[in-house]
Amino acid sequence: MSTTKNLSPFNEDHSRRKFIHNLTKVAGTAAFLSLPLAGNAGVFFNMKQKDNTVGEIMDLFISQFPGGALSNTVDTLKAGDRDIKVTGIVTTMFATVEVIRKAINLGANFIIAHEPTFYNHLDETAWLADDDVYRYKADLLKQHNIAVWRNHDYIHRLNPDGVRMGVLNQLNWQSYYNPAASSVLMLPATSLKSLIEYLKQKLFISQVRYIGNPEQSCQKILLMPGAAGGTRQIQAMGKEKPDVLICGEIQEWETAEYVRDAQAEGQKLSLIVLGHIASEEPGSEFMATWLNKNVPGIKITHVLANNSLSFL
Amino acid sequence: MSTTKNLSPFNEDHSRRKFIHNLTKVAGTAAFLSLPLAGNAGVFFNMKQKDNTVGEIMDLFISQFPGGALSNTVDTLKAGDRDIKVTGIVTTMFATVEVIRKAINLGANFIIAHEPTFYNHLDETAWLADDDVYRYKADLLKQHNIAVWRNHDYIHRLNPDGVRMGVLNQLNWQSYYNPAASSVLMLPATSLKSLIEYLKQKLFISQVRYIGNPEQSCQKILLMPGAAGGTRQIQAMGKEKPDVLICGEIQEWETAEYVRDAQAEGQKLSLIVLGHIASEEPGSEFMATWLNKNVPGIKITHVLANNSLSFL
Repeated sequence: MSTTKNLSPFNEDHSRRKFIHNLTKVAGTAAFLSLPLAGNAGVFFNMKQKDNTVGEIMDLFISQFPGGALSNTVDTLKAGDRDIKVTGIVTTMFATVEVIRKAINLGANFIIAHEPTFYNHLDETAWLADDDVYRYKADLLKQHNIAVWRNHDYIHRLNPDGVRMGVLNQLNWQSYYNPAASSVLMLPATSLKSLIEYLKQKLFISQVRYIGNPEQSCQKILLMPGAAGGTRQIQAMGKEKPDVLICGEIQEWETAEYVRDAQAEGQKLSLIVLGHIASEEPGSEFMATWLNKNVPGIKITHVLANNSLSFL
Repeated sequence: MSTTKNLSPFNEDHSRRKFIHNLTKVAGTAAFLSLPLAGNAGVFFNMKQKDNTVGEIMDLFISQFPGGALSNTVDTLKAGDRDIKVTGIVTTMFATVEVIRKAINLGANFIIAHEPTFYNHLDETAWLADDDVYRYKADLLKQHNIAVWRNHDYIHRLNPDGVRMGVLNQLNWQSYYNPAASSVLMLPATSLKSLIEYLKQKLFISQVRYIGNPEQSCQKILLMPGAAGGTRQIQAMGKEKPDVLICGEIQEWETAEYVRDAQAEGQKLSLIVLGHIASEEPGSEFMATWLNKNVPGIKITHVLANNSLSFL
């Protein structure tokens, strides 16, 4: 029901549509991949231009890691199989039904998503076997022989983290990146309110949730895109003592209550919750750029999953 | 830093302050407890008027359950011990540092909270041993010899669920309650937008997050206060096919994405995310009312934990 969403005053479909990038560039017969992994520089691949399979493209990305494929990972195929010959690739945060339909319209049969397809971290589906929404989505993928690969653990394990670099690029904060403390950025001092306005503008967000004094000065930023979980968020805040944690998603009874108690204790700590998708979307764009560079001859399209939640 | 919060335009301290109820009523020498549990009607207790200990008050609440104390529960003492003689009780959603300070000012040494004290569901503290915020809070409780009991599993297991009944009372929706399908309410048809406005007004919320067409008609409501988790929320939506799920908190990659895909499949399903505290706060007021009725001679104060997150 895409018409439904357009009635929302906060829906971002229109403002963001222009940012759906078609990153296709047809390169030469082989592309050379400069590896971002420390200690592995100087190794190069080439990729055949045509008839690449899903499995070959997955393997190419995974070949960047010295240890090879992870033995325990959520980065599995959620639909389709390794042998499908790829007609086009869509990168996205979520392989929603709407994103799948866009892939079909684009003639793309390989979706590389950052997050789950079936509403739980492990993409377990037994509990959904009789669910109408699950069945509709699984049938849609099967009917069009579309492969969906989750690329979550791998892209985060790049050095530097591919999602983080995508976000820093989007924010024009590359110069503040410190490999020795990758989550911590020392920005020119700015008010919490100005920082929020900047984030909203750069990441195309209508509203954020936050805790703090809008006039508070922020300089030391703890940037944790996505939903790292309360334990990791709290441990990082306790260790780094930032002025503000910027993250994608929280459990309210964990991170939010810690921040409130830290303020009551006398700390200046604030919190900005961007929304999960907005906080990691540039990571899927990073992936599209990577594919465009390293997988020649295949049309690569980054399709925005858009923020799921509106505000009223 | 309570001064910090007052600078927020969305802070609800002022508008809600008048709702901090002092529910104290000194009853007679004994109070009779009418049990809400099915199959247990007709059993009565009496409670000594003076010098009740923390353990006695816990036991009185737990004695409502035919099976007695749960063997596996998060409803444990987070500070203090059973033998503390109670000088006053504060009920609240969260025993935040600010709530603890209010309890101290009220001369109350027993806090009954619905949610964790130390930022994780099990209130594990080993990982926080060196954390400044944890140590400050734990020391504050110890210094003032305050007991904190979490009453979560028990109050939800009342029949009907005490939190649910508190919320229905607050919403004036008691007449829509159906014991055979306690989460489902059939309301007079109203637009999603009007429903949201009603919820905001009745639950003192500045904004909610939602998915759906604001003009959509809503009649069949699935009401799940708190954070039941994606699996339970999704299974309930799949089974009940409501017009809208109203809940406290979600994982964005679970419940929100299911709702988006359900809409794309053609369902009318919408989602309203109230915020965790706002969605269950009336449950702590229910608890204060229960104590006031059943524990005579002790000052009972319901202290609002206030919504943690503001919007900008």
